[in-house]
Amino acid sequence: MREELVDRLAGRVDRLSELGSRESVAIARVEAAMLAGARKAFEAGGYTEISVPHLTRATGACENFDTLFETGYFGTPAYLSQTGQLYLEAFVPELDRVCCVGPSFRAEPDVDSRHLTEFTLLEIELKCDLAQLRDEIEGIMVSIAEEAVGRAGEDLAYLGVDEGRLLGRVKRPFAVMSYDDAVKCLKPEYPGLGWGDDLKSQHERSLVRYAGDVPLFVTHFPEGIKFFNMRLNRDDPRVVNSMDLLLPYGGESVGSAEREEDDALLEKRLRNSYMIGQIARKKALSGEWTGIPEEQQRDMAVELFRWYIDFVRNNPVRHAGCGIGGTRVMQFLLESPDIRAATTYPLNRETIM
Amino acid sequence: MREELVDRLAGRVDRLSELGSRESVAIARVEAAMLAGARKAFEAGGYTEISVPHLTRATGACENFDTLFETGYFGTPAYLSQTGQLYLEAFVPELDRVCCVGPSFRAEPDVDSRHLTEFTLLEIELKCDLAQLRDEIEGIMVSIAEEAVGRAGEDLAYLGVDEGRLLGRVKRPFAVMSYDDAVKCLKPEYPGLGWGDDLKSQHERSLVRYAGDVPLFVTHFPEGIKFFNMRLNRDDPRVVNSMDLLLPYGGESVGSAEREEDDALLEKRLRNSYMIGQIARKKALSGEWTGIPEEQQRDMAVELFRWYIDFVRNNPVRHAGCGIGGTRVMQFLLESPDIRAATTYPLNRETIM
Repeated sequence: MREELVDRLAGRVDRLSELGSRESVAIARVEAAMLAGARKAFEAGGYTEISVPHLTRATGACENFDTLFETGYFGTPAYLSQTGQLYLEAFVPELDRVCCVGPSFRAEPDVDSRHLTEFTLLEIELKCDLAQLRDEIEGIMVSIAEEAVGRAGEDLAYLGVDEGRLLGRVKRPFAVMSYDDAVKCLKPEYPGLGWGDDLKSQHERSLVRYAGDVPLFVTHFPEGIKFFNMRLNRDDPRVVNSMDLLLPYGGESVGSAEREEDDALLEKRLRNSYMIGQIARKKALSGEWTGIPEEQQRDMAVELFRWYIDFVRNNPVRHAGCGIGGTRVMQFLLESPDIRAATTYPLNRETIM
Repeated sequence: MREELVDRLAGRVDRLSELGSRESVAIARVEAAMLAGARKAFEAGGYTEISVPHLTRATGACENFDTLFETGYFGTPAYLSQTGQLYLEAFVPELDRVCCVGPSFRAEPDVDSRHLTEFTLLEIELKCDLAQLRDEIEGIMVSIAEEAVGRAGEDLAYLGVDEGRLLGRVKRPFAVMSYDDAVKCLKPEYPGLGWGDDLKSQHERSLVRYAGDVPLFVTHFPEGIKFFNMRLNRDDPRVVNSMDLLLPYGGESVGSAEREEDDALLEKRLRNSYMIGQIARKKALSGEWTGIPEEQQRDMAVELFRWYIDFVRNNPVRHAGCGIGGTRVMQFLLESPDIRAATTYPLNRETIM
């Protein structure tokens, strides 16, 4: 996207001044094409769309419980969901390929080029392993790029995006690299980075640059920094069978993994997870669980996931899935370094209306 | 749907016991087909899908401000949206046919056959009048019924629904009756009902029965009981150019209207609306606006809609639109008198998970 346009759109605190502008309409049309491209792939792939809830207890949370929006739910707290993953997974044993598309909410106070408080998340779950999942994700990304060009080619051109360059970037198969190798690659540029650290946005940008400014899968992250139900690698239990897709401009745009089907292991990892500690702390701070010993708080937090653990016990089916951040994908399509310039109604602390 | 099944599914407070059951899977598949049917009609009709926000200020509210879920938004209150209508309308001048599909939230404390706290709302807005809108809605309903039969015929049969009966009910054109005539029709059965009263679910059931258990449009409701931006009828300003679609089992399932393009009239009606009084009262009770005179509270409440009024002033385009309650349509497809038996994850005060 043209640089002065990114700056102008990113700065649009007053949404009204942009509503109906040529740029705003172009972005809306590309966003519609992005959704259409994903849905076309879901349809061709035989996915069943599941209507998942967006008001949830703890099982609507991603890794970071501290960024959940809370609402009063008739005397108890409920949360605005960040993912429908566990609710989707519940239909995999019977339906195999399932998907959902909807809002994901994050209480991110930062007003900057990386954070929004709401964005569209596209999720799939299916009976497959990581290699097959990679095929699915590539297919969805290609479909998105093709529909963007096919339905909104003029809008892309108006925003300064070259169709050929975009389509050239989604040639299959995409580049793949293990987390292990990624850390080794990054070491010269980032000597402070160690094995076990999470990759930050500057690391992602460097990796994508090394790969030649194309999509790059990074696989097999350390167990400790990922969601509790990502399946442990049976050969190297330091890592999980996970896979992030890094995109030019968007950075980490897809998070994916095989899911743990061993319910005992699942419960143990959940109990020891960083997230469970966060839940306990949050509930204690809010007064709900004040005065209860920490170990007992952890047990109570685990109970919030009981329906899911029980479900896995009764349905231990090997499967995998992913969540595709719609606005990150839009950054890739629009070549926008700023997320606020990449969606129809960018929502942060300042722009809510 | 078979009666004992409705009772069992409606009573499923413990969602886990139903997750993955044959019935639960059948309902999920019909719901996916319902969404696919609507999207097929949107695609054929040339609609652009707009990614509307679900965290909003007051402009995400329907008629009833008291049923908004509230969340803390970095020190100020935000609401979980009930409709994306005004955010959709902002793209009608440039894009004409626009649509959105997403969750609608209602803080309904009642646990019964009629209320959920979240359901999928499908909305369209386009440059057209009420008669053309009726055509659009009929087309969408037919597409939904056809996809339900085509994609989930076996599931419908398993749930006790006869395909022929369902398809027979969506023969075009649908029956149409004015609110005036509806009140006259209902008078013998409900002598207490007067002109100006809203229709309640028992009235809707009676009207659908009189019509022969088929979909029935009721048009031209009294101005005072409808959303502030429904367009006043220029020949009879007691009524607005609105239209509800009543469905067997679902009752009021689609609300629709032409939108007022006269911004002065719009602002005057907004200021006098019941909703503005509710907003003022709610903000006063919560402490936000305590101690401010009531007239001034009303002015402040109107300011929450300023961006929309300004937008209409700058873009006075004749248009109309509707909101389709996905779960009410599901009740129609499944012949379920209970809304809790008609969606994959029915959400109320008790069933949140």
